[in-house]
Amino acid sequence: MRRIILFLCLALAAGFLMIQTGRGQAPRSAAAVGPAGQPVFTPSGELVRPQGYRRWVFLSSGYGMSYSQAASEHLMFTNVFVSPGSYDYFVEHGNWPDKTMFVLEIYSSASKGSINVHGNYQSEAVGLDVEVKDESRFPDKWAYFGFENGQKSSAATKPGQNACWKCHDQHAAVEHSFVQFYPELLKIAKEKGTIKPGLTL
Amino acid sequence: MRRIILFLCLALAAGFLMIQTGRGQAPRSAAAVGPAGQPVFTPSGELVRPQGYRRWVFLSSGYGMSYSQAASEHLMFTNVFVSPGSYDYFVEHGNWPDKTMFVLEIYSSASKGSINVHGNYQSEAVGLDVEVKDESRFPDKWAYFGFENGQKSSAATKPGQNACWKCHDQHAAVEHSFVQFYPELLKIAKEKGTIKPGLTL
Repeated sequence: MRRIILFLCLALAAGFLMIQTGRGQAPRSAAAVGPAGQPVFTPSGELVRPQGYRRWVFLSSGYGMSYSQAASEHLMFTNVFVSPGSYDYFVEHGNWPDKTMFVLEIYSSASKGSINVHGNYQSEAVGLDVEVKDESRFPDKWAYFGFENGQKSSAATKPGQNACWKCHDQHAAVEHSFVQFYPELLKIAKEKGTIKPGLTL
Repeated sequence: MRRIILFLCLALAAGFLMIQTGRGQAPRSAAAVGPAGQPVFTPSGELVRPQGYRRWVFLSSGYGMSYSQAASEHLMFTNVFVSPGSYDYFVEHGNWPDKTMFVLEIYSSASKGSINVHGNYQSEAVGLDVEVKDESRFPDKWAYFGFENGQKSSAATKPGQNACWKCHDQHAAVEHSFVQFYPELLKIAKEKGTIKPGLTL
């Protein structure tokens, strides 16, 4: 699972992912997110699994996204959410405030069910990753976390300028966020002129 | 476009759909939705295009969903949103309060872009449909509306027990909503015992 999450973290170009473990497995608590959906850390510096992000703002979803040349056998959905306060800031400014947190859910896909014959719908929660911007906590501003089902807290994936960080830094349209895959935010970023210069979208 | 929307209305099993026309084309106004995301109607009884639904609660998304035996050439994404007040009610009760409004966006898909090689991401807004539960306004409780890009209001699709209505009535897991395609709501409906008896999910 960790390998899948790490692969997707790199591969998906959303750059952070997260599993919806299902209600009841991880009880919602006020401590799981701070004011306006800000990240909360344990005394040892691990990120506490965010709760309630399904009421945050949905950015977009992908299906089977990968930068690998080899096609994957099991295509999955990925849903990206951002906290409402950060979303509002982006709408106004076209970039992200400090303490922004993104959540990326991964869901398995199903094709045959009910009246659906073709195409795919989301079925089972597989994993979740989180991307956090925290300038005071992380010297490189952005950090990446993976949560398996039921996992309550997570250490950052190789702190510093790891592969996730570098990929986001080089290829993400706005700061470390892959706005090129979120159509509504892309319009805003174009209006605000906040897309990285010279980037091929 | 209308044909696509109508087809998807039937085909998608989400049963309602809607286009995100893009900021600026349809200005957000307080009159576009009532309290807690409730529907607003024109004096002639048309549904006013809901605004701000991208800050509602995301239920799930599908890719290329269809109940047609023939595979579609152009596979599209569908994102489903419901107003926050109705979502909270569902979490508590497992069914939908009067004045519930669902919005289904349709987006075209793209595959080759940025670092993505395989899989698909959302690209251009194609259409949107809306499903409304309004017991005092509609004798059959539920009604269906389609909006083309830029369209400000919409009459219900053949008022009464039309094909959309019948499909939802027969096959949707909870009332007229295809909860079988929304994993998080499906868990709740199972807990609350609100799934239609005898239904094959």
